[in-house]
Amino acid sequence: MSASRYTYLGPEGTFTEAALRTLPEAATRELTPMVSVPAALDAVRAGEAAAALVPIENSVEGGVTTTLDELAAGEPLMIYREVLLPIAFALLVRPGTALHDVKTVTGHPVAQPQVRKWLAAQLPEAVWESAASNADGARLVQEGRYDGAFAGEFAAATYGLEPLVTDIHDAQNAATRFVLVGRPARPAAPTGADKTSVVLWLREDHPGALLELLQEYAVRGVNMMRIESRPTGEGIGRYCFSVDCEGHVTDRRVGEVLMGLKRICRGVRFLGSYPRADEVTATVRPQMTDSAFTEASDWLARCQDGRS
Amino acid sequence: MSASRYTYLGPEGTFTEAALRTLPEAATRELTPMVSVPAALDAVRAGEAAAALVPIENSVEGGVTTTLDELAAGEPLMIYREVLLPIAFALLVRPGTALHDVKTVTGHPVAQPQVRKWLAAQLPEAVWESAASNADGARLVQEGRYDGAFAGEFAAATYGLEPLVTDIHDAQNAATRFVLVGRPARPAAPTGADKTSVVLWLREDHPGALLELLQEYAVRGVNMMRIESRPTGEGIGRYCFSVDCEGHVTDRRVGEVLMGLKRICRGVRFLGSYPRADEVTATVRPQMTDSAFTEASDWLARCQDGRS
Amino acid sequence: MSASRYTYLGPEGTFTEAALRTLPEAATRELTPMVSVPAALDAVRAGEAAAALVPIENSVEGGVTTTLDELAAGEPLMIYREVLLPIAFALLVRPGTALHDVKTVTGHPVAQPQVRKWLAAQLPEAVWESAASNADGARLVQEGRYDGAFAGEFAAATYGLEPLVTDIHDAQNAATRFVLVGRPARPAAPTGADKTSVVLWLREDHPGALLELLQEYAVRGVNMMRIESRPTGEGIGRYCFSVDCEGHVTDRRVGEVLMGLKRICRGVRFLGSYPRADEVTATVRPQMTDSAFTEASDWLARCQDGRS
Amino acid sequence: MSASRYTYLGPEGTFTEAALRTLPEAATRELTPMVSVPAALDAVRAGEAAAALVPIENSVEGGVTTTLDELAAGEPLMIYREVLLPIAFALLVRPGTALHDVKTVTGHPVAQPQVRKWLAAQLPEAVWESAASNADGARLVQEGRYDGAFAGEFAAATYGLEPLVTDIHDAQNAATRFVLVGRPARPAAPTGADKTSVVLWLREDHPGALLELLQEYAVRGVNMMRIESRPTGEGIGRYCFSVDCEGHVTDRRVGEVLMGLKRICRGVRFLGSYPRADEVTATVRPQMTDSAFTEASDWLARCQDGRS
Repeated sequence: MSASRYTYLGPEGTFTEAALRTLPEAATRELTPMVSVPAALDAVRAGEAAAALVPIENSVEGGVTTTLDELAAGEPLMIYREVLLPIAFALLVRPGTALHDVKTVTGHPVAQPQVRKWLAAQLPEAVWESAASNADGARLVQEGRYDGAFAGEFAAATYGLEPLVTDIHDAQNAATRFVLVGRPARPAAPTGADKTSVVLWLREDHPGALLELLQEYAVRGVNMMRIESRPTGEGIGRYCFSVDCEGHVTDRRVGEVLMGLKRICRGVRFLGSYPRADEVTATVRPQMTDSAFTEASDWLARCQDGRS
Repeated sequence: MSASRYTYLGPEGTFTEAALRTLPEAATRELTPMVSVPAALDAVRAGEAAAALVPIENSVEGGVTTTLDELAAGEPLMIYREVLLPIAFALLVRPGTALHDVKTVTGHPVAQPQVRKWLAAQLPEAVWESAASNADGARLVQEGRYDGAFAGEFAAATYGLEPLVTDIHDAQNAATRFVLVGRPARPAAPTGADKTSVVLWLREDHPGALLELLQEYAVRGVNMMRIESRPTGEGIGRYCFSVDCEGHVTDRRVGEVLMGLKRICRGVRFLGSYPRADEVTATVRPQMTDSAFTEASDWLARCQDGRS
Repeated sequence: MSASRYTYLGPEGTFTEAALRTLPEAATRELTPMVSVPAALDAVRAGEAAAALVPIENSVEGGVTTTLDELAAGEPLMIYREVLLPIAFALLVRPGTALHDVKTVTGHPVAQPQVRKWLAAQLPEAVWESAASNADGARLVQEGRYDGAFAGEFAAATYGLEPLVTDIHDAQNAATRFVLVGRPARPAAPTGADKTSVVLWLREDHPGALLELLQEYAVRGVNMMRIESRPTGEGIGRYCFSVDCEGHVTDRRVGEVLMGLKRICRGVRFLGSYPRADEVTATVRPQMTDSAFTEASDWLARCQDGRS
Repeated sequence: MSASRYTYLGPEGTFTEAALRTLPEAATRELTPMVSVPAALDAVRAGEAAAALVPIENSVEGGVTTTLDELAAGEPLMIYREVLLPIAFALLVRPGTALHDVKTVTGHPVAQPQVRKWLAAQLPEAVWESAASNADGARLVQEGRYDGAFAGEFAAATYGLEPLVTDIHDAQNAATRFVLVGRPARPAAPTGADKTSVVLWLREDHPGALLELLQEYAVRGVNMMRIESRPTGEGIGRYCFSVDCEGHVTDRRVGEVLMGLKRICRGVRFLGSYPRADEVTATVRPQMTDSAFTEASDWLARCQDGRS
């Protein structure tokens, strides 16, 4: 039954699965790994899954362009949740292996730059070879092909391995942000700590268009959290923008920003309003609260009626 | 009966009366000259007159500060019409007087700088003395105290004088703008060539506040036509702003500007939406028309409902 | 000898003279009252006086338009000092007069609105008649024509009168700002608490031009203190702007603002940099100090040379 | 001898080599393929090569993040040239092969999405397998492992193959932009059609910082061509911006923008001024030309000296 199924970027035992399992509702869902982000999302578009969890941003590697481009094109989808997962690797070994026994190590190519300094300091002689995924690396250790694999600590049990060292990460605050994506529906109610995502296509013949776009946010005191340019596929120099801001689509100030963007942009795709993973309450200037909008709206009605 | 009465800045025979008589409805009203702008407006506030015509701006002298300050303070009033009157003087003389007979001239002090060049060229020997008003000057010529008076050509008949020379004005395009002011009521319907006036008080502790105020207009593509600072009376460095912009309070873009101003300003006084005297249709970018606002609003509702 | 002479808006015994006498150098100058602001300034233009003190702004009445227009047009002049004078009236009487003896009072018409409430409360029966100046009112009391005159307390001695009541002013913080104007010369050295004045003419065909003008200030963190629109004399809807900002023309941030204005405006007239009368030190963000400008300039030179 | 050597992202026979060969100076240089962008750039940093050609942006895939991150970090480098190469694939086959003989095809994984539609229409039965690079795919066809390889037409001769079909590309205007990178030195003289690149780190505690950054460009009429956010590695939500604008570091307007950015940003890295590959002359408003800057600067000097 599709409504009970969540897809995610597989294979099993990766950080994406770990991120998905932090969601309470994951416990009651059938969780299906998919070979790629497009595959995970297409299952949702086709009605074969209720939602998909995919990575969208990494603090070391940047935006996950496949996810950004998939959300910007094709049948519309919406974001309902985000998950922020600190990225720390464990060195997984077969039971009984000591650190000085580790001569060969493996992991996903993306993991290598994040453990390079640790390797140089702790296992300078160890030889690295890449695996198709962190989980696949763990399996290859299980099979005896390598002595150790860098993967999430949670992958150890699945492959009968032991975490010999944990919390390995070269960069401070390394984290990956994941989003839970479904078909368009009414967004969840605002929590006071929300985020709203859109994709924006500027009108073609307009040099100051990006500045105008930011001013739509600034004039209503809405704080922009992330802006990322992506090619539209129409040639070098043609971009669209993926933008996150504080607040919820039902907040008056956010709604007015979105309407302003809708008017001045060639295209706007609404990607959803959802709770911020960091649960930081939006900072709203007293002039920009819902009640300030309501008062101004009432006053305008009085002006129009001659009762001001 | 007060509803049939219009007051104006007197005395009779001045440019204000001439401006008032350009309004079709003036023909069916009792027109009462008053000694000052506050007196003309207080008659309206007290219900003793339906409306008052007062000068608000002169292309040579600038804003009429008494009018600006009266509209900003006290019991609220609203502007319903504006009249633009080209200012050109006639030299009024008793019948039979020739130009070389004119040795002494009079007129309101404000008239003098506007005829100074003409006098220097045509009557270099003539002696000027000021009168209490242009109309009063005409009366003094009638009584034989002076040989000529600078006044509106229309004042000749009232005082049994002849316009010896007409269309005298040192500055090109000299004009005075008058406004017809009444008690607050529903503004006239939009004509497509309208103007909206407000008085704005900035929050006190904010250096960039004036820039923010202008951006409220700019972001909605609303063209500002006039901005004038006036002291609030709270000390040097404390100002409010009298602002006119294109458009009508029922235009969506203007309404959103007004609500934005209401939120960010310490105070906003709506002074009305009324037809422009020059009948120039507002230039509205296609992104800022009422239908663009409606489309954006419909789209936002669909986003909020998950139907985007 | 002209270099030793200062003119001022007369007559003697007015607030302008009192303001002038607050300047230390006034003690060594010949002080000559003139009948009007243009007359006081023309004496400077003609080399008959070294400088002129004229009022430029009043916290109740607003900008002194004659002064603003004189500085914007004609042979260039520059402001070298400003004086801020609290406006408080004294009721001057002949020696021996008691308050209950005062049946008739006089003063300049501008004084009346500033003492109206006091009169209503303390001398409700007294009859007011206007005089040509506050000083002239004092003279008329001396001559016995009126029982009391509202004037500056300093005028008492000149006319053999006594201040019966002092510190009379309806509005809190009532003050007039005066400027000392001379022919163009190098401005005084910066004091850290300076003000820079300009007149700006916008390009004609540009709706957002005023916003652009303010952004020149904002981008360099220069705080605007006053902006006043004045007609250019070319017809209704054509304005120039008189603007004061914090800082000195030799401050790097102010210099860059002025160059920016020079480029985008149809015309700019520099009216001087001079110490603020209130001696408030300019608030300068650390990114906008002279040393921040110098560092950025040095860095740019290195970039241009390939040494960055 | 290092000065005569250029490195590039290898292997031989790829589009990067084709781009490099469009530069006239490439004819007299030793061209050395490197296994990665970092390797190509590190050879330059180490003085083992005079310059390196690397891809920086693709109209389908977006920014080449490795290149962007390498230029933003480590020992400074500068861009001296850019090359814009239209991306069109040829289907390379062994001599004598007809289209209906092609059952298996290969190419770099990045090529697949760019030829997918063509394959579906022309060779719906053909089986795709990925190769390590487009050039490697050609080699595998030479060895008989596959029937056809998608690669640049220029690769045919190297591997004894024939281009059976040329100009294959699903997206219109598909192109890749490459940059020639060297150690910091004086930029080439301006050509009138130049581009200037920087990396900008915003101050941390400032929500409107991105808007301020864009206004530095806007106020000087400098057109921004590309903006791309990249993580700083300090955690989710921390970005730097890679920005290209029109104009040359020796243009006065661009210099003033760069100094402004230097003041307000936490960090600025100048990446060079170089001729635009599309040879489009910059649009410069008359108020922003070098002569407008010079006139304003001369005028400011006169103001400071009292000669305005």
